[in-house]
Amino acid sequence: MTRPETPLLDRVAGPADLRELSDANLAKLADELRSEVVSAVSETGGHLGSSLGVVELSVAIHAVFNTPADKLIWDVGHQCYPHKVLTGRRDRMRTLRQKDGLSGFTRRSESPYDPFGAAHSSTSISAALGFTIGRDMGQPTGDAIAVIGDGSISAGMAYEALNNAGAEGRRMFVILNDNEMSIAPPVGAMSSYLSQLYANEPLAMMRTMADEFADAMPGPMRDGLKRAKALVTGAHPRGTLFEDLGFEYVGPIDGHDMSQLLPVLRTARARATGPVLIHVCTVKGKGYAPAEQSADKYHGVSKFDVATGTQAKSKPNAPSYTSVFGQSLTAEAARDPSVVAITAAMPSGTGVNIMADRLPARVFDVGIAEQHAVTCAAGMAASGLKPFCAIYSTFLQRGYDQIVHDVALQNLPVRFAIDRAGLVGADGATHAGAFDVGYLSALPNMVVMAASDEAELQDMVATAAAYDKGPIAFRYPRGSGTGVEMPERGTPLEIGKGKVLQEGSDVALLSFGAHLDETWRAARMLEEQGLSVTVADARFAKPLDTALLERLATTHQMLVTVEQGSVGGFGAMVLHHLAGEGLLDRGLKVRTMTLPDRFIDQASPDQMYLDAGLTAQDMVHTVQEALQPTVSNVTTLKR
Amino acid sequence: MTRPETPLLDRVAGPADLRELSDANLAKLADELRSEVVSAVSETGGHLGSSLGVVELSVAIHAVFNTPADKLIWDVGHQCYPHKVLTGRRDRMRTLRQKDGLSGFTRRSESPYDPFGAAHSSTSISAALGFTIGRDMGQPTGDAIAVIGDGSISAGMAYEALNNAGAEGRRMFVILNDNEMSIAPPVGAMSSYLSQLYANEPLAMMRTMADEFADAMPGPMRDGLKRAKALVTGAHPRGTLFEDLGFEYVGPIDGHDMSQLLPVLRTARARATGPVLIHVCTVKGKGYAPAEQSADKYHGVSKFDVATGTQAKSKPNAPSYTSVFGQSLTAEAARDPSVVAITAAMPSGTGVNIMADRLPARVFDVGIAEQHAVTCAAGMAASGLKPFCAIYSTFLQRGYDQIVHDVALQNLPVRFAIDRAGLVGADGATHAGAFDVGYLSALPNMVVMAASDEAELQDMVATAAAYDKGPIAFRYPRGSGTGVEMPERGTPLEIGKGKVLQEGSDVALLSFGAHLDETWRAARMLEEQGLSVTVADARFAKPLDTALLERLATTHQMLVTVEQGSVGGFGAMVLHHLAGEGLLDRGLKVRTMTLPDRFIDQASPDQMYLDAGLTAQDMVHTVQEALQPTVSNVTTLKR
Repeated sequence: MTRPETPLLDRVAGPADLRELSDANLAKLADELRSEVVSAVSETGGHLGSSLGVVELSVAIHAVFNTPADKLIWDVGHQCYPHKVLTGRRDRMRTLRQKDGLSGFTRRSESPYDPFGAAHSSTSISAALGFTIGRDMGQPTGDAIAVIGDGSISAGMAYEALNNAGAEGRRMFVILNDNEMSIAPPVGAMSSYLSQLYANEPLAMMRTMADEFADAMPGPMRDGLKRAKALVTGAHPRGTLFEDLGFEYVGPIDGHDMSQLLPVLRTARARATGPVLIHVCTVKGKGYAPAEQSADKYHGVSKFDVATGTQAKSKPNAPSYTSVFGQSLTAEAARDPSVVAITAAMPSGTGVNIMADRLPARVFDVGIAEQHAVTCAAGMAASGLKPFCAIYSTFLQRGYDQIVHDVALQNLPVRFAIDRAGLVGADGATHAGAFDVGYLSALPNMVVMAASDEAELQDMVATAAAYDKGPIAFRYPRGSGTGVEMPERGTPLEIGKGKVLQEGSDVALLSFGAHLDETWRAARMLEEQGLSVTVADARFAKPLDTALLERLATTHQMLVTVEQGSVGGFGAMVLHHLAGEGLLDRGLKVRTMTLPDRFIDQASPDQMYLDAGLTAQDMVHTVQEALQPTVSNVTTLKR
Repeated sequence: MTRPETPLLDRVAGPADLRELSDANLAKLADELRSEVVSAVSETGGHLGSSLGVVELSVAIHAVFNTPADKLIWDVGHQCYPHKVLTGRRDRMRTLRQKDGLSGFTRRSESPYDPFGAAHSSTSISAALGFTIGRDMGQPTGDAIAVIGDGSISAGMAYEALNNAGAEGRRMFVILNDNEMSIAPPVGAMSSYLSQLYANEPLAMMRTMADEFADAMPGPMRDGLKRAKALVTGAHPRGTLFEDLGFEYVGPIDGHDMSQLLPVLRTARARATGPVLIHVCTVKGKGYAPAEQSADKYHGVSKFDVATGTQAKSKPNAPSYTSVFGQSLTAEAARDPSVVAITAAMPSGTGVNIMADRLPARVFDVGIAEQHAVTCAAGMAASGLKPFCAIYSTFLQRGYDQIVHDVALQNLPVRFAIDRAGLVGADGATHAGAFDVGYLSALPNMVVMAASDEAELQDMVATAAAYDKGPIAFRYPRGSGTGVEMPERGTPLEIGKGKVLQEGSDVALLSFGAHLDETWRAARMLEEQGLSVTVADARFAKPLDTALLERLATTHQMLVTVEQGSVGGFGAMVLHHLAGEGLLDRGLKVRTMTLPDRFIDQASPDQMYLDAGLTAQDMVHTVQEALQPTVSNVTTLKR
């Protein structure tokens, strides 16, 4: 693979070196940086489109601001690849999103240039205000700069932060990276003109004069100015919302034109006395033709060929859980007109796009707004609809209070389809679905299921559609199913009933969810060592199959629970029950296999579960250790 | 106690009766309703001020809309007393907030006129949109009307909902109850004039003409119009944000003038084709002089004398946990300039007002914005400050994702001061702090403490101030402490160390948090029955005192954990540990006393814990049942 020629970039060890370059060279450097990012991501895969959109912005911010003393905070953080190249991580870029490699997001532990990590959206303005207050109270920190996209700024959390930052009135910078708006050439030229013209004026005046110019300008430019508001409000813009919120508003400027970016950022830095919002328009996938021409602008890509843009395709043996969910949901919706689906800006990620293709009026994308999504679903349920609220485990945390207060407390039949449960691979710890079983099972009225394979997922969708007595949740992992035979349609499960898959007498392995295959592997290994093993699929963390539990507890010397989640979840529910019923009183070697008490860094899911101590080998080891005094003929295995 | 004369109200069995009354009689009825509410609340205590502010609005909405087919959703719900009187619950008003009585909030199970319960803020627009979608999809429901206050509408969740509702464009009604704005007489008259003048015009035109009038009007009226925007933005209003969000905006109108309310609501109901926002100005405490003259407008009152407004005062023997927290925090802040406090619109509720009185620049009230509060605190911590984020247990659920993603994952030393942990009394299930121990203890890096008395709370504040390695949380209940001696200042506790208070040999009672007194009572009762009882204060749910646990588990035949929280919390952490270490292998009678798997209705906290099965008697019963075969001389006690 040939690497691009990057003579300027080769001389940049860190942002300080950028501050020595001329503006013309900074523009050239940006071109080199773009080639380097394309080259690196072609080897690793990753969030290419958004990173290409902020190449010039990354160079400009680091050239103008005094990072790392100034705190640059990328919202979401998936657009940070150029930033990583510039901040001393170029040599590790080809380890991106891999085990022991660079994170695909910003991360405090990775670099002093990442003052605040991210991955979930809309946190940057809150964090930037926190740093700003710290600076104003004497902490050794410079200016805070949040860079936030047009999608992220529409979430309630970002609004809360803008509202508070505007009221606080402290000097800080929010750069709105508007990558849905492309500036047409004439407007770009005017904008360029404006930014040069007013580079030496105080910001407030800059804004006022810009307004005057705008009035005298042709439509497209005025539209540009108005778009700032439409971004947040979604409708009928008039002025800019940001000014209403107490920010100085500057823009829009062309985020790929260094001759606009550099003077505007310099002026803002020199003159700001309060909060400033700089509206920058960028193009997702900018400068790499295959990305610009692609519908999703190469938002997330696998490895690809740089010349052609052709992405490597993995060939799964089985359909993804996501598509099985989408298809099962669509089938249920086709049969029952009261079934509706809700997504928070993730129609294709959650698979509800499959239903939207067929039944568009019954799929609701509410934007990045998990709080509203959950309570709106509760309202729908109260009206008699059957809402499926499809939100990833990690993002459902954003709607937790609404699940407690609006759904569980009122016992409303909202169906929670929880994708990305467990460890998720390259997206790492920030996207892990670790806590949902615990935070849901603690709630009265809630039914909590986990699918052990894609056929069971189909059954759980049918179960959720049929169950109308209260809230019900089902979780399933990222990625492909196990390749089991798929019945034509799902069959509702009996609520609170697990399933014994194999009867044994020494050790009972009770799996909850998608670790069942791994549990089977452990059973085979234990059988090779002469143990008689029961394997059961719990299906429900709540209500528990208490009859099954009692049987397992009283007819085996050892019971091991297995789940792809943290403590406080399925294993804890089992322990509470066994303790309460006195089933531990006379001794039972009970063990709960859960995620460990630390966050697990990105790697392949298998590697992550290895790291987490949740492999078949780990289960065997746990059983051996527990049975050691009684089963002396078992050789100790090493991890 | 004399009851007010209410001849009209006496003839109202439900909202249908209102629709038979003349406008003049509706105004009279409102006066009677106000007297009735004052009279009832004087006997029970409750949220008087906000209820008095919506007396006319309650009458007008029920008179104009077709409740309960039309869905009236009160945001927060604490202003619903007049609504309850009108909707068939008058005879039970004097049981408000009491055991087996009416809830202090709206509640689905209480009445068909309460289509969506509340208590936490800012949920009503989301719920109303859910109902609206249900209606549009053929469910048997009429129009949805959300009534939301100026505080609640500033939360991110409400913004998410407005944003989505505006984009959906469906016919629905949001009534903004702006009770910080009082209309001065001339403006009120103009407003009255306008509402009559345009009552028969289509809404859109009504709005346009109102705008034109406004331009020609003196300052105060224009200010009124502009206030709508300021409410949401907090600064520099220009137009109305609601129109930008896709709503028709009507107002402001005088919410105590039936001659404005009725025609405006009638017109809106008759003409609306999309979402409509009606801006209504009310006065908190309206019509009851002691309330209007009080600083907090009688927001929440205890029983009082109607003639004088004098509230009954309970005389606590000990300081409240809230005030101990506020004072301890202030003391720590006085010693360490990096200590700051954050509250989400609850300065006095959380006690940070005590610090604000002395160190105002270091206390940050971010408004109803728990998500932003947590992440802003994380940013502060990253900058080197020591933020204490003081949020009630039940409201901290709103910031859960931020705790996971911004605080725990980055291991940032944010201190969470969690008031109102456990059952809270008259506010009932919606305000219970039941889940925090579980949802926090599952998180890597988190330290989780609970205070057994107010002196330990003071120590925990000192511990949190001293601990800078990562996030730390401490919980404590609503109400008065136990009256223990208070040292002059707190002493940092050793992280992860519990305390044995009394050594015994049969049963170990391990209490986490404020149920320690009740645990002592159980110990005394068990001792009377001849058992030797160990009593220990765990202090930490995470990290656990593993040495203590091992000692208790190996030197007693029974171990009982006690906590004021749900399953999945402290007890679960103990069970996971005991199981993992093999300490259950040879038999230990272990029991976890937690809140049961149902929501507990309002009553006194003691009554609620009785209901929950968490009394000393319950502990004794649990021990007896477990030990029955071996301790035959213990008489079975009845609950």
